Amino acid sequence: MKSSLSLPIAVNTNILEMEYAVRGPIPMRAAELENRGMKIIPCHIGNPQALGQSPLSFNRQVLSLVEDPAKIARERALKNIFEETSISSIKESDFVSDDVLTASENILAKMKAGGTGAYTESKGERFIREAIADFINKRDLHPNPNSISADPEKIFLTSGASQGVKFVLDLLIAQNTDGIMIPIPQYPLYSATIKKAGGVQVNYYPDEDSGWTFDQSLLEDSLAKAKENGVTVKGIVVINPGNPTGAVLSEKSIRTVIDFAAKHQLAVLADEVYQENVYSGEFVSFAKVLGTGSVPLFSFHSISKGFYGECGHRGGYLEVRNPPKVQDSHLDFVDLLTKQASVSLCANTAGQILTYLMVSPPPEGSESYQKFIEEKNKVLTDLKDKATMIREAFFQMEGVECFGETGAMYLFPRLNKLPPGKTDFDYCMSLLETTGLCTVNGTGFGQQEGTSHLRIAFLPPQELLAQVLPEWIKFHNEYVG
Amino acid sequence: MKSSLSLPIAVNTNILEMEYAVRGPIPMRAAELENRGMKIIPCHIGNPQALGQSPLSFNRQVLSLVEDPAKIARERALKNIFEETSISSIKESDFVSDDVLTASENILAKMKAGGTGAYTESKGERFIREAIADFINKRDLHPNPNSISADPEKIFLTSGASQGVKFVLDLLIAQNTDGIMIPIPQYPLYSATIKKAGGVQVNYYPDEDSGWTFDQSLLEDSLAKAKENGVTVKGIVVINPGNPTGAVLSEKSIRTVIDFAAKHQLAVLADEVYQENVYSGEFVSFAKVLGTGSVPLFSFHSISKGFYGECGHRGGYLEVRNPPKVQDSHLDFVDLLTKQASVSLCANTAGQILTYLMVSPPPEGSESYQKFIEEKNKVLTDLKDKATMIREAFFQMEGVECFGETGAMYLFPRLNKLPPGKTDFDYCMSLLETTGLCTVNGTGFGQQEGTSHLRIAFLPPQELLAQVLPEWIKFHNEYVG
Repeated sequence: MKSSLSLPIAVNTNILEMEYAVRGPIPMRAAELENRGMKIIPCHIGNPQALGQSPLSFNRQVLSLVEDPAKIARERALKNIFEETSISSIKESDFVSDDVLTASENILAKMKAGGTGAYTESKGERFIREAIADFINKRDLHPNPNSISADPEKIFLTSGASQGVKFVLDLLIAQNTDGIMIPIPQYPLYSATIKKAGGVQVNYYPDEDSGWTFDQSLLEDSLAKAKENGVTVKGIVVINPGNPTGAVLSEKSIRTVIDFAAKHQLAVLADEVYQENVYSGEFVSFAKVLGTGSVPLFSFHSISKGFYGECGHRGGYLEVRNPPKVQDSHLDFVDLLTKQASVSLCANTAGQILTYLMVSPPPEGSESYQKFIEEKNKVLTDLKDKATMIREAFFQMEGVECFGETGAMYLFPRLNKLPPGKTDFDYCMSLLETTGLCTVNGTGFGQQEGTSHLRIAFLPPQELLAQVLPEWIKFHNEYVG
Repeated sequence: MKSSLSLPIAVNTNILEMEYAVRGPIPMRAAELENRGMKIIPCHIGNPQALGQSPLSFNRQVLSLVEDPAKIARERALKNIFEETSISSIKESDFVSDDVLTASENILAKMKAGGTGAYTESKGERFIREAIADFINKRDLHPNPNSISADPEKIFLTSGASQGVKFVLDLLIAQNTDGIMIPIPQYPLYSATIKKAGGVQVNYYPDEDSGWTFDQSLLEDSLAKAKENGVTVKGIVVINPGNPTGAVLSEKSIRTVIDFAAKHQLAVLADEVYQENVYSGEFVSFAKVLGTGSVPLFSFHSISKGFYGECGHRGGYLEVRNPPKVQDSHLDFVDLLTKQASVSLCANTAGQILTYLMVSPPPEGSESYQKFIEEKNKVLTDLKDKATMIREAFFQMEGVECFGETGAMYLFPRLNKLPPGKTDFDYCMSLLETTGLCTVNGTGFGQQEGTSHLRIAFLPPQELLAQVLPEWIKFHNEYVG
């Protein structure tokens, strides 16, 4: 039989309607322009190594050896030979430190048989989950009388933070009247995942002019409105430090969220992937503020951000506190998250190892420590300086205001003046076409009606910024003028 | 405010009801026993490196250098020094071949800025998708007048094959009356993913006694029954070579499926992850048989199987032919698959690189070729020998029959004799408790009512098999006797 032409197919409308601006029309147009030879500066996404940030030497040296274990013994043998002979063209610094060799051996010894080539447990390698628990306990100053310690059995290695978020939202959203509160503006992973799961996105609006802060009444208003519309709110998402706003939450704000969640029996989803990217103020974790409280807390971390920037390796973790029991079942959330992880078999092993290295950096006084700290500080200082350069450029752009502290990797300036009929989408598209600078319009993240914004990742090298910022200022003042 | 104890939460019942036997109660019990010190032989899952299979040297050497690019120049410098001096403790074979260095450099040169640390395009690196298209064209003997060539823009790098399957099924299942035909027995990824997406699993039953073959009438019967029940069948899954059966489809059977799909306007999902694991007969791809036909075809491949066994690295691809248009939209399936891929950002880069190496092995005559072929043949010969050993043991087990050719990594023997009241689950659990051999009962894959089976992955080293098979025979004959 000859096959016939296929008809259009009805598909899952949730996927059809889902939007993901960070990889939407503006970045797609940028890719087209790049293929035609235009120089593009990709500031639409937090992808530091694509803009020249170097990976941490220690982490990559270890990963490299774990991927090819035969090289560990050889490296040691070569080091010995070069210590005994004097071959001038090879320097001691061409060899990895002894603690790199030891770390690689330790990882291989702790991994179940098969090293990086074997599936791990669905949740991820147990020793890595233990190291994550230690990292959390140390970060949150455990032991102290007001906290409980992290449990490796309630930690899941995930493919970036995104997979963990999906696991939790897919589970929480049981029907099409179930809603999840998210801050506006938000990272579009949340809106997209809620949409795909068939749930309701319930917006709450941190106050831009006061630096994206929020209080209980603002949360209560959002919840009340959702209830009026017949929505059962199941959880609240908080991104701290904020994406796209960069705002860093105070301990008081975190306490507000936890009390609100307790009062209304909500789960808290704390996206803490930018916990190392705080340039003023201090990061406080939800787990620390939760202490011995009984609110269900899901917190997410990632190797993609911080000073690691290992986006491509897709590593991260999800930590659960107070996993809720499941209605009409003897199971709890940890059981069902494990089942979901099982169907994907496991998080990729290179990402797992980089997650391990993120939570187990070279200890103070170790051979690799000095270099590690230098690399870390260089990245973080550079990010801060670049944010400052861009903020200063905003002062020369008519009607541009940028609120809040500097955190994460983004600035989210408000465009108070746009030509009649023009949106922030038009603005960002023109900015791209004119200067090659690829940003994302505020609409992609959500914003208060009547306002216009853009998000820019402050990642390009300073030399490049020094070159493009005057072009942007010129573009801007002509565009709005 | 003090937080209060949280109540049980209503969750997505699809996840609650979803089952995934390959990581279900038997493997979970095995993990418990292992923690108590029992020696477990993990044959419940195709995880070759966990059972001693070595990764391919070429692939890992390249990956290792790509993860730590500074080592490439150093390796070259060291090689030169050792060629000029004579240090007896170091052999030439301690250095990687020149083509490993070249391959590593080429990959880094072709990757977009940032190497493995940067997000790639959502679909995966373009040069890898081009290499996959070349591989498919070569495999399917393109150009020939009856085929069309693969298109890199219709190829997606995925996290294992599983992620690609999920993307397609999540899209196809638009409502709870949409069904997907799957062979019984099947790999539980399919039943689990259909369940999670809220669709209907429509079984068809290849004929065990004739070696798991099937004809059109068998497919028509299954479809007719589904229609009677109000199910709209959207697609048909075929696993070739079969998992768990190992059956290898003939070109005629593939033609039957394609004609059937054309007649009923179904999409075909061809799981071809075991295409290198054919120990008798020949693998023919669905794309080759499809030729210039217009049936929508989604085919899946993976680095986890074959002679690579890189399960932990989570690499694979999805190739689309004749992407269907989407009803009430200007978009087609490639657009929507791209959107789904975007929300996960990209497949992990180490997995992408190993996928590239899978489709671009060292060419004949190259420096690394000989060793590559030796390693490949060793793995495949060993797998075949181990399957034979296990098949021979079955002859000594009362009432055990194993049908079909040997393919994939599994045998799926039928247990014709079980004690009254005992199921194949009971059998596998007792087998585990008695011998440490971890298999999965047939129920986990689905089976004709009234039959009992188990699946065993033929992966343990031959020495270990020689030791455990007599124990299994003894266990079996006592259990059923």
